Amino acid sequence: MKIGLDIMGGDFAPNATVLGAIAAFKALDSHQKLVLIGDKDQALPIMKEQNFNPDHFEFVHTTQTISMGEHPTKAITQKPDSSISVGFKLLKEKKIDSFSSAGNTGAMLVGAMFSVKTVPGVIRPAISTVVPKLKKGYGIMLDVGANADCKPDTLLQFGILGSLFAESILGIHKPKVGLMNIGEEEEKGNLLMLATHPMMKDTNMFNFIGNIEGRDLFNEKADVIVCDGFTGNVMLKLAETFYVLTQQKGFQDEFFARFNYEQYGGSPILGINAPVIIGHGISNPEAIKNMILLSRSMITTKLIDKIISAFK
Amino acid sequence: MKIGLDIMGGDFAPNATVLGAIAAFKALDSHQKLVLIGDKDQALPIMKEQNFNPDHFEFVHTTQTISMGEHPTKAITQKPDSSISVGFKLLKEKKIDSFSSAGNTGAMLVGAMFSVKTVPGVIRPAISTVVPKLKKGYGIMLDVGANADCKPDTLLQFGILGSLFAESILGIHKPKVGLMNIGEEEEKGNLLMLATHPMMKDTNMFNFIGNIEGRDLFNEKADVIVCDGFTGNVMLKLAETFYVLTQQKGFQDEFFARFNYEQYGGSPILGINAPVIIGHGISNPEAIKNMILLSRSMITTKLIDKIISAFK
Repeated sequence: MKIGLDIMGGDFAPNATVLGAIAAFKALDSHQKLVLIGDKDQALPIMKEQNFNPDHFEFVHTTQTISMGEHPTKAITQKPDSSISVGFKLLKEKKIDSFSSAGNTGAMLVGAMFSVKTVPGVIRPAISTVVPKLKKGYGIMLDVGANADCKPDTLLQFGILGSLFAESILGIHKPKVGLMNIGEEEEKGNLLMLATHPMMKDTNMFNFIGNIEGRDLFNEKADVIVCDGFTGNVMLKLAETFYVLTQQKGFQDEFFARFNYEQYGGSPILGINAPVIIGHGISNPEAIKNMILLSRSMITTKLIDKIISAFK
Repeated sequence: MKIGLDIMGGDFAPNATVLGAIAAFKALDSHQKLVLIGDKDQALPIMKEQNFNPDHFEFVHTTQTISMGEHPTKAITQKPDSSISVGFKLLKEKKIDSFSSAGNTGAMLVGAMFSVKTVPGVIRPAISTVVPKLKKGYGIMLDVGANADCKPDTLLQFGILGSLFAESILGIHKPKVGLMNIGEEEEKGNLLMLATHPMMKDTNMFNFIGNIEGRDLFNEKADVIVCDGFTGNVMLKLAETFYVLTQQKGFQDEFFARFNYEQYGGSPILGINAPVIIGHGISNPEAIKNMILLSRSMITTKLIDKIISAFK
């Protein structure tokens, strides 16, 4: 198994990424190899400082970096030797089994769709995010930003993708899928949700429990929260505010602690032909480590094969 | 001035409503008269218990009540002697200057639109909500549920309505209007926001400051937050969760305290020809009192006249 990591991605790269890789190494089995993609000359001194033997990793040296503000498509095409471009090239050629980066989100999405491509049958891939549940454990919300405008059949597919993720990665049996809406009743919602609800009700592809509301994000009603990418993105950013606020104000709590993005490491892109995870821009070593371990879970559980089968 | 209040609306009516009216009475001038609409026979004993002279109020006795779960349009037409139906009749006949209720939201919206009607030129009225700002004071967000699907020109009008409210009621000079979106850049967003942004940029009806994101709800970027009713409703319910959570967990904080719906009393419907406020279903006496005082502000500041002028 080869787990690819962009060591140039994120606000604190390459320091945070290399330190995260070192932390992850200790949790990996000997046959689970980390492949660091980026400027080796910058990575080596960081390892040396940690007295860490670089031979534990494989390196793919790159000379270019895509920064956070760059236009995704332009950057990917104009910087073929950037860590993101090279990462996706390796992933496409199956030289690595997964690829993750805390770098430019748009470039990650474009790179994924143009290299490993969308799973046949999937209309649009989704960016998912793990959400902490009040009682215990986590759920998954998707889409949180890849698709600002969605159609009912796209949302239906998000239900399938999210359900498979919740089952494989979060270990939830028959995950409850809820449709984010503005009322519990079937006849509530905007045109998109009104059209989506009956399709979800009719499907046998997942366990649909009906509409949920903004107040249900953290409770036990649904394990998989399906929404369009506009709503999901707004919700995610609003929820993050609260985490930041409770931290700023010094509120210590087990639930708010689980809010911490560092715990789950990143946002998997679901519906593409390989495990790809986008990390938070501000990822620290802990977040990078968990992103690597999440990549491993996506490989070992054969999530992608399950998704491909579901859409056959 | 006659301030109309539905004393049958809300989960704790008529107790909470009558107690709220008594509390508000003490803050009102002698020419500011409260008109209680509902079952007088239920109201009198509550006042008696408080040693409160019922003659301080005017009463309009009604015999029917619209409950929370009823279908709005059906309820309004089939219960002509309900407190909500009678309240809107009085408002239409100008026998009261404002009407507020913590009862059935849908019935309040339908009642408003069919009695006092939409201001000429306004495409769709909006339900607004006051949001606490981190530094100090409040902003306003609209729409939070009246319009699940919006068009760009509707959102543009929400900017005008919200701006007038922020100026008149919140006392903010040249309120900053932000468009809730998934990125700061003009080219970010769903089709609706992409079409709305340039219209807002071109308008001279308010002070447009550009796109804002989910994380900006409570900061100082915008005083008026414009969104479609679907997004606004989801955000509002999510934000309420956090207030409830911090309360449950015993986190004491000035900011979270200002989150309390009791402080601002209710959600004004903007874009109709009279001051109408929908209170939270769980309104307690404090919330009812503040809803009454907010009604008074909407009357004394002549907010409705300003709105009518703006759309002429």
